[in-house]
Amino acid sequence: MTDIAIIGGGPAGLSAAINARIRNKTVLLVTNDYKDSYLAKAERVDNYLGLPGLGGQELMEQFRKHAESQGVEEVNKRVISVMPMGESFFLSYESEVAEAKTIILTTGVVPAGKLPGEGEFLGKGVSYCATCDGMLYRGRKVVVVGKSADAVEEANYLHEIGCQVTFVADKEGTRGLAEGVELVTAKRLEIRGDKAAEALIADGREIPADGIFILRQAISPQDIMQGIQVENGSIVTNKRMETSIPGVFAAGDCTGRPYQIAKAVGEGQVAALYAAEYIDKMKKEN
Amino acid sequence: MTDIAIIGGGPAGLSAAINARIRNKTVLLVTNDYKDSYLAKAERVDNYLGLPGLGGQELMEQFRKHAESQGVEEVNKRVISVMPMGESFFLSYESEVAEAKTIILTTGVVPAGKLPGEGEFLGKGVSYCATCDGMLYRGRKVVVVGKSADAVEEANYLHEIGCQVTFVADKEGTRGLAEGVELVTAKRLEIRGDKAAEALIADGREIPADGIFILRQAISPQDIMQGIQVENGSIVTNKRMETSIPGVFAAGDCTGRPYQIAKAVGEGQVAALYAAEYIDKMKKEN
Repeated sequence: MTDIAIIGGGPAGLSAAINARIRNKTVLLVTNDYKDSYLAKAERVDNYLGLPGLGGQELMEQFRKHAESQGVEEVNKRVISVMPMGESFFLSYESEVAEAKTIILTTGVVPAGKLPGEGEFLGKGVSYCATCDGMLYRGRKVVVVGKSADAVEEANYLHEIGCQVTFVADKEGTRGLAEGVELVTAKRLEIRGDKAAEALIADGREIPADGIFILRQAISPQDIMQGIQVENGSIVTNKRMETSIPGVFAAGDCTGRPYQIAKAVGEGQVAALYAAEYIDKMKKEN
Repeated sequence: MTDIAIIGGGPAGLSAAINARIRNKTVLLVTNDYKDSYLAKAERVDNYLGLPGLGGQELMEQFRKHAESQGVEEVNKRVISVMPMGESFFLSYESEVAEAKTIILTTGVVPAGKLPGEGEFLGKGVSYCATCDGMLYRGRKVVVVGKSADAVEEANYLHEIGCQVTFVADKEGTRGLAEGVELVTAKRLEIRGDKAAEALIADGREIPADGIFILRQAISPQDIMQGIQVENGSIVTNKRMETSIPGVFAAGDCTGRPYQIAKAVGEGQVAALYAAEYIDKMKKEN
């Protein structure tokens, strides 16, 4: 069993990872490709103490090099859910599952709100993971709402396994779409259905579908971790970066403003140190 | 008037300073010499993300270089007190005074508790500042309790201006003491007096004195800033690093554990950003 599973590999996640390693804990870091992160796209960062004047990508590379030197390995997959199971947690990321003693959420900001109907039909035709649920829709009509860098790849995968795929995007990021995948450009989206999702309404046009895959850069923490306390879209934490669920910590942009590197790095450190303490206490009690 | 006075030039103070400068605020940074800081004495720091494997002094030098590149100037003096004056604050450091719109306390950990009698006789024979109060004791008997790097220098100053000086230390740090200053080595200290301090009891031996100068690396935040809320020796802050006094922020070790660089740097950033916001709001209201 892994000691600490960290979800998100931005500054908060990497800081948590090196601090966990230094406290001699094992770490599973599950994250998107860092090149898709906001920070990697920043032109120049001047307010992270000690490392002025670097571009976002350079800074991320320096952070990652540090993490690698501490033996942190990352897995580039999409985390679907985290479930408490007695004294540990089960983490599912695409088709894999892992068990961890503690969780640190460093999932960043979820930029947009949900689509109308998304929450209502989640698990009833609406899915966040093509790899997980694609097979259920073999030979049927699906829509992929592409809002992340890997959405095209996922749409192609669904096409390959025999779904009839419509890809909906707001113009950009459609390069590489397989032939046979229909492309629809639209901005205002809504999901309609009765007991399950039946169609996506895209700028007023109805696209019937049995499955609707919404692929975003980040999934909101409540969707990953049911029942976690959230206020104004941010995970509620105390000064030890503990969330409302014992054994689950959070750090960085997902805990609220300011959305800044140093704040994220500091919180990541604090989360890791108290997660390590949590594990050590658990060991003593057992 | 300065926008932001920062008290303490460790990682939290320097991070606050660069972030304040980037938000286009003027900064007054008052601090001890960084070579006396705990961090400068650390052999190797491995858990500040992006800068692994540096010695404490190297890391501090890199931090200071960054601050200098942002136009931060520091003043190496001992802050005595901060007083709210309507919509601003008066800061006194040794024989100088400055006015600032906001204060950020980054004073670090105050390692030891007070001496018995210290609180009772503060301002009644007990002083934290030879430069400020020395002249009052010209021609009289004083004791210097030396717990900081500059204590010897201060004792010599008192001797120079004509005090009869006894220097009390627990062995170390007495190099350079002027001839004519009596040296006493003792560990258990206590201040006795009636209406004012009359003597220091050093390991049971009574040393009569009119003035007792206690020179520590750091002064506790309550002594600098009367009425600030403190719990278990740490300044109470919310997530915006606001203290119980409007316009006064705090960051780093003085707000509590963990005593770590990344945590301090993150909090310094947050304090500076909300101090800048506080100033901008004040401007709008006036």
